[in-house]
Amino acid sequence: MLLIADNLQVFCGKTGKALEDLDPQPIQRVVLECLKAGVEAIDINPGPLTREPERKMTFLVEIVQEMTHKTILLDTSNPTALEAGLKVAKNRVIINGFSLEKKKLDYVLPLARKYDVDIIGYLLQPDGHVPRTYEDRLNVAVDLYTAFRESGLPDEKLIVDPIVVPLLWEDGLDQNRAVLEVIRTLPEVLGYPVRTIVGLSNLTSGKGPRKQKRFLEMAYLPMLTRSGLSMVMLNVLHTETVEVARSCDILLNSQIFAWENPF
Amino acid sequence: MLLIADNLQVFCGKTGKALEDLDPQPIQRVVLECLKAGVEAIDINPGPLTREPERKMTFLVEIVQEMTHKTILLDTSNPTALEAGLKVAKNRVIINGFSLEKKKLDYVLPLARKYDVDIIGYLLQPDGHVPRTYEDRLNVAVDLYTAFRESGLPDEKLIVDPIVVPLLWEDGLDQNRAVLEVIRTLPEVLGYPVRTIVGLSNLTSGKGPRKQKRFLEMAYLPMLTRSGLSMVMLNVLHTETVEVARSCDILLNSQIFAWENPF
Repeated sequence: MLLIADNLQVFCGKTGKALEDLDPQPIQRVVLECLKAGVEAIDINPGPLTREPERKMTFLVEIVQEMTHKTILLDTSNPTALEAGLKVAKNRVIINGFSLEKKKLDYVLPLARKYDVDIIGYLLQPDGHVPRTYEDRLNVAVDLYTAFRESGLPDEKLIVDPIVVPLLWEDGLDQNRAVLEVIRTLPEVLGYPVRTIVGLSNLTSGKGPRKQKRFLEMAYLPMLTRSGLSMVMLNVLHTETVEVARSCDILLNSQIFAWENPF
Repeated sequence: MLLIADNLQVFCGKTGKALEDLDPQPIQRVVLECLKAGVEAIDINPGPLTREPERKMTFLVEIVQEMTHKTILLDTSNPTALEAGLKVAKNRVIINGFSLEKKKLDYVLPLARKYDVDIIGYLLQPDGHVPRTYEDRLNVAVDLYTAFRESGLPDEKLIVDPIVVPLLWEDGLDQNRAVLEVIRTLPEVLGYPVRTIVGLSNLTSGKGPRKQKRFLEMAYLPMLTRSGLSMVMLNVLHTETVEVARSCDILLNSQIFAWENPF
């Protein structure tokens, strides 16, 4: 399972200000934390980038690429920013991402074809809402896959995000149980070993006691892994969750067991 | 999921000595730890009890029953000790347990019928060895269920233990992956919603770094839960594993989510 840091959120706080000022240091500090955690990829999330999208995205991608050759995810709904990032990208790139929303189909999906990169497809309805049931999610998955194929991209470029929702939502428990089932059955539904990803931090977003949030994360992630999850986006400062993720990989994917296994 | 403390092992160390001296205090201390952790049941494991089996088992059961009304598991291979425990038991009892070993079939299994209590059946071969593959375990399960039914007990009294093995065993990873599959498919194989149990401490038994052991436990337990595990026996001093177990229950079995959920 590929671990992706979701820590580089540069639309608020210290890094948000650093991006406005084009000051690399606060951003480098976050990237360093991600690298220290040993994740395989970093999600670059500058938000919608309403002002100077190209300049800012280029700035961010270049900072990260100076520090690592690891995969980067370009996480913006702004196609101009996205293309600017794709133009300067030297590392492996994943576009994060598209959905059945018309804007995304028209302006984001074609960029994956143009730059020949992987792209994440969210299981969201065309109006941007989260489908509520397992069946709804599968229906969206089929529509999403159809749109993806029509864009001329090959199967292996798609990574499906079935959308983990906050447990605090009225039907949060049911929805997150449906997510497990979707991950398990999607390869059969789409007829090939489609890769899947989730944003784990979503599970416990909103107010709540910190320790209990962590334990819920630690309990849910192995269930996702066991269901067949290919990639997880998580907060690398949750070091115990990262350790559990590594342990999941050992339990399900290693060939031999030894205590020297890298954690 | 029912949590069972495996901490009351009274065949060595301080509690072992206490049992020899019939000194209740060291044993009460362990029981108190189990109760503080909020588990639903306590496994009483005095080992084979070669000397004074009846007196010692009675002593242990009475100590526990004075402190709690929770379920007790009588965990001895000595049928004399077992029957002594059953005779004085007032709490709900589970016999832990029988297997296809002739001695167990002849002397342990009939006690479940005689005292009308639940019994754990280990998926072990008649010679006491652990079956190596998923298929081997299922074959043993069918034989075990047949023997169980022939003893006159109703389906709902059986709890199957598919045997978690140490990861350090040569094929430990494969075997513990097979355990997940056995738990998931056993209800279909036996044709009814059979309950399952595992001894989680087995997973990381043997030498190894303490922290990594805990993370492996924390990663494996949610996979077991997701596969449908009904009960888990664990070390209540591993407080984080206990929290993860509670979180598993919330994620898979609660009806509504709220932060006030008892952890």
